Amino acid sequence: MTLPAMLQIDEILAAYRSGALRPTALVAQVLERADAYALKDPAVWITRAGREDLMARAAFLENQPVDSLPLYGIPFAVKDNIDVAGYPTTAACPDFAYVPQASAEVVARLEAAGGIMIGKTNLDQFATGLVGTRSPYGQPHCVFDARYVSGGSSSGSGVAVAAGLVSFSLGTDTAGSGRVPAAINNIVGLKPTRGAHSTSGVVPACLSLDCVSIFATTVADALKVEAQAAAWDAAAPYSRPMAHHALPQQTFRFGILAEKDRFFDGDAQNAALYEQAIRRCEALGGIAVELDYTPLRETAELLYGGAFVVERLAAIEPFFTAHEAAMDPTVAGIIGSGRRYSGADVFRAIYRQHELRQVAAQMWQQFDVMLLPTMPRIVSREEVAAQPVTANSLHGVYTNFVNLLDMSACAVPSAFRDDGLPFGVTFVAPAFADHDLGLLAGRFHAASQTGAGLARVAVGPVEGALRPAAQGALRLAVVGAHLKGLPLHYQLEQENAVLVQTTRTAPDYRLFALPASVPPKPGLFRQPGFEGPGLEVEIYELSAAGFGRFVASVPQPMAIGRITLADGQEVDSFLCAEAFASKGQDITALGGWKAYLQTVQAG
Amino acid sequence: MTLPAMLQIDEILAAYRSGALRPTALVAQVLERADAYALKDPAVWITRAGREDLMARAAFLENQPVDSLPLYGIPFAVKDNIDVAGYPTTAACPDFAYVPQASAEVVARLEAAGGIMIGKTNLDQFATGLVGTRSPYGQPHCVFDARYVSGGSSSGSGVAVAAGLVSFSLGTDTAGSGRVPAAINNIVGLKPTRGAHSTSGVVPACLSLDCVSIFATTVADALKVEAQAAAWDAAAPYSRPMAHHALPQQTFRFGILAEKDRFFDGDAQNAALYEQAIRRCEALGGIAVELDYTPLRETAELLYGGAFVVERLAAIEPFFTAHEAAMDPTVAGIIGSGRRYSGADVFRAIYRQHELRQVAAQMWQQFDVMLLPTMPRIVSREEVAAQPVTANSLHGVYTNFVNLLDMSACAVPSAFRDDGLPFGVTFVAPAFADHDLGLLAGRFHAASQTGAGLARVAVGPVEGALRPAAQGALRLAVVGAHLKGLPLHYQLEQENAVLVQTTRTAPDYRLFALPASVPPKPGLFRQPGFEGPGLEVEIYELSAAGFGRFVASVPQPMAIGRITLADGQEVDSFLCAEAFASKGQDITALGGWKAYLQTVQAG
Repeated sequence: MTLPAMLQIDEILAAYRSGALRPTALVAQVLERADAYALKDPAVWITRAGREDLMARAAFLENQPVDSLPLYGIPFAVKDNIDVAGYPTTAACPDFAYVPQASAEVVARLEAAGGIMIGKTNLDQFATGLVGTRSPYGQPHCVFDARYVSGGSSSGSGVAVAAGLVSFSLGTDTAGSGRVPAAINNIVGLKPTRGAHSTSGVVPACLSLDCVSIFATTVADALKVEAQAAAWDAAAPYSRPMAHHALPQQTFRFGILAEKDRFFDGDAQNAALYEQAIRRCEALGGIAVELDYTPLRETAELLYGGAFVVERLAAIEPFFTAHEAAMDPTVAGIIGSGRRYSGADVFRAIYRQHELRQVAAQMWQQFDVMLLPTMPRIVSREEVAAQPVTANSLHGVYTNFVNLLDMSACAVPSAFRDDGLPFGVTFVAPAFADHDLGLLAGRFHAASQTGAGLARVAVGPVEGALRPAAQGALRLAVVGAHLKGLPLHYQLEQENAVLVQTTRTAPDYRLFALPASVPPKPGLFRQPGFEGPGLEVEIYELSAAGFGRFVASVPQPMAIGRITLADGQEVDSFLCAEAFASKGQDITALGGWKAYLQTVQAG
Repeated sequence: MTLPAMLQIDEILAAYRSGALRPTALVAQVLERADAYALKDPAVWITRAGREDLMARAAFLENQPVDSLPLYGIPFAVKDNIDVAGYPTTAACPDFAYVPQASAEVVARLEAAGGIMIGKTNLDQFATGLVGTRSPYGQPHCVFDARYVSGGSSSGSGVAVAAGLVSFSLGTDTAGSGRVPAAINNIVGLKPTRGAHSTSGVVPACLSLDCVSIFATTVADALKVEAQAAAWDAAAPYSRPMAHHALPQQTFRFGILAEKDRFFDGDAQNAALYEQAIRRCEALGGIAVELDYTPLRETAELLYGGAFVVERLAAIEPFFTAHEAAMDPTVAGIIGSGRRYSGADVFRAIYRQHELRQVAAQMWQQFDVMLLPTMPRIVSREEVAAQPVTANSLHGVYTNFVNLLDMSACAVPSAFRDDGLPFGVTFVAPAFADHDLGLLAGRFHAASQTGAGLARVAVGPVEGALRPAAQGALRLAVVGAHLKGLPLHYQLEQENAVLVQTTRTAPDYRLFALPASVPPKPGLFRQPGFEGPGLEVEIYELSAAGFGRFVASVPQPMAIGRITLADGQEVDSFLCAEAFASKGQDITALGGWKAYLQTVQAG
């Protein structure tokens, strides 16, 4: 089969499963595509994997069942500041290049999950830039218009996904490098919580801030990749186990820029498209809340205008001292400026960062997520050549603060402009919200109708495709007023419960409509030996704490205990003391509470 | 009434409640005591509150009910690097002194809780020291022997509690300043989780590491104070909301020094007393596990031997530049050494700190707490005069690493030596374990029979006196095999449930011994209109997640739902479906499951 224009993970897996595609055939087509795209843009890759190696890898996979590996035969690209065993890591600086013996932990995990590493992509040297032009390996460009930059620093990784050369790619994101290329190339850029992905085997930019990020066609794909890539790694100083910060999904408050803070560098169309994005968010259930951008702006300025630039020097100081002349002059200028700051300056900058984190913590009491333009506007290669620092800075206006404040972010396409360039927005949330943030951003992307990538392929809904990332989730069956659409369902929403199954109880359960219950509720109880139709239940998944709080809120005469399902499995469920339930009307024969409500309404 | 030798909070409150004591009478006696102790050691205080102010404060309290304030009329002292409105803050450096208009957030909270601030205590200048001798306001000394130092840097705060001048005091702890004086003066030193107490209004030593600590007679008192003092404060850069890290209490693994790491500077008696402390911990249910001290030693060396010393400079750089000559020469030498480090050095030190935190995170998989000597031995004032830095360093051998690795710690008395000096140990645990760590350390202290303070007053058990500090705890009543001492009680222990009440249900509940249940279990259900004796229940408090996990583990035919207690209140409880329970033996008349088990055993 011919590969689809964008290589969405589920489509590829389905083709493998059906036998319509095999990994060797995929590799052959991917190589053809990469060759063809190189005629249009020769600067995407720094090093591509050789055909023989790729074919050997594909053949190895063909000896294994498709469903044995979550990313079976899925092609991906890796930014060239992340180690892949046996390939040079250049960080876009030939004098710095070395050949690592081991792959970075994230790469190793993705390969273990079945991924096929296609090559190492171009970047702004030492990941210092948001344009993609600061590289001796050429300047990748926007997939829609060669006059515009690709965005950076993860330039090649953004283009490789948008052009359909790989299913996903790894970038890194310190100032916005995992988000800006997504906006410029109409794809998704997931900037996970700092520490979710190990940085072992990654050339540091600012080690305390660096995140390995994911570019993909859809949020669903990006989250599938994160699920494989994320793991606590004791060898990475800032790695941490993932927690779960829940976000409301149906009705949510989203922070927006006040009129005075809507800076688009004079671009009226982007200003209008941001307004359009706000309206779309409202249509999805969002309540817009104006945010105070002042502390975020101050935070952003710490990154390049203050002592955090010292981190870039600390990362490569001996190399920098010896090879400054061999570096990109703009990058060398930025890194060298780190010499201006004393040790005390650094601590004072870190204290200011923590003060601003406290301000941000208070902001989250006003809204659940932020909706920001990913950037004011896309700059052209000509502008960057004329003003290498100023033009670059324009790309970071709305991205620089995120990692300093320990937030998660997801950049998604929002619209196309009259000139054919895309306009993207970024959802920002507290740390550990990655999964729930993805659900929200994915719904927004699907509603935006931009499609994804150069080919603008349609993007399906994200809901239902995903499961909570939280460890230790617990399940609860509901049978009455908590069913979806009924009056107490909001209590499940408050705990961010996720529907995982609709099914029936074993036949020996009975359901009674309780007398004088407000809102109307049924009571379920087991009667050994009884033979009924089984009662319809919806099974939800909640965090342990959410489950605990939910149970503690259940009033008399209800209780929570295990029931047996039609398939013999057990799950916690609402139950009711028989002495109370049996005073009501027996509705067991109707098979469930919703069926009973219909008879009541019909009557 | 005459005040007791040590001013334990509950004793004072009980005396207030009974009318045997009033705040004005307490203040009068406290002032007499302070005057009397000043003849023995004139260096405890830098500034004492005036009699008139204290009497006015006491009179104000006398117009309020005792139980309206958790620390009603409780006298406390404040280290003189923490602001109290209207009193100079000197940090033991007269040239630095200023008079703050507002109290530090922790002080304000303790006064709002009813505490009476008696005065500001002496310290090693700028909290830089572990001896207590680096102060122009004199050298407080060990309450047991004037030849020995008091320990520092919270020197006066340690002595003020140990001498019975106040119920508790605030110290600060960066390198061990909240623990070393506790060991030297036979009291408790609680070094809470970093960020639990606001540092707003505290002169920084190393702002990223500083903790406001608590000295008290007992762990129970220290935790009572922490419960009032701890609160997230957006104005303090490192403040954070408290979480709850649970520690097992009955059977726990505790890390101990390997033979090769047991450094007591040649003091054989302290070596033997550490061994004795290990045996005592084993007797309390502990399983000793040898720990690898190497990474902890390396961490400790970062604090003074590496770039973290720059924090002390960053804290007061303009003052230091202008007034270096007016400072204690040892302190000035340490702070001035911060000039040696570049910005890049600082970031590299912070990276190493984070690498070592990852090593520590792995250590916690091997044991739940560490049991360490608080210090190798107590140094004499003569030794410090001869070797001001070396002698000081000896006090920090086992304390310096704790804040760099984000751990909580509790120093408690362990024994007395033949020469009359005390020997103390410190329990160390991960961040947020403060409460559970306190339970453990309090049990150890009670078992040690050292008593507390100069007067060595007896220390009672800590269990039952305390409630979980975790927010959002939930309650569960148990009626059968989960009662204390019965076979399934361990399931509550696994979730660190705390018994809060033993009481009875309303009269309309019935209890049946379930047939063929292993282990034997009863079933409780409500029968409207039934008039019985009510059934005995134990009510436990659990975290929401612990409650959730517990409920999810309950098998059929049991369930969890609300019951009504004899006093009309509702609480979640075990329940059983009547259809199942009523197949067993009705034991309602016996009033509870334990009474039934006794009849079975008697039979």
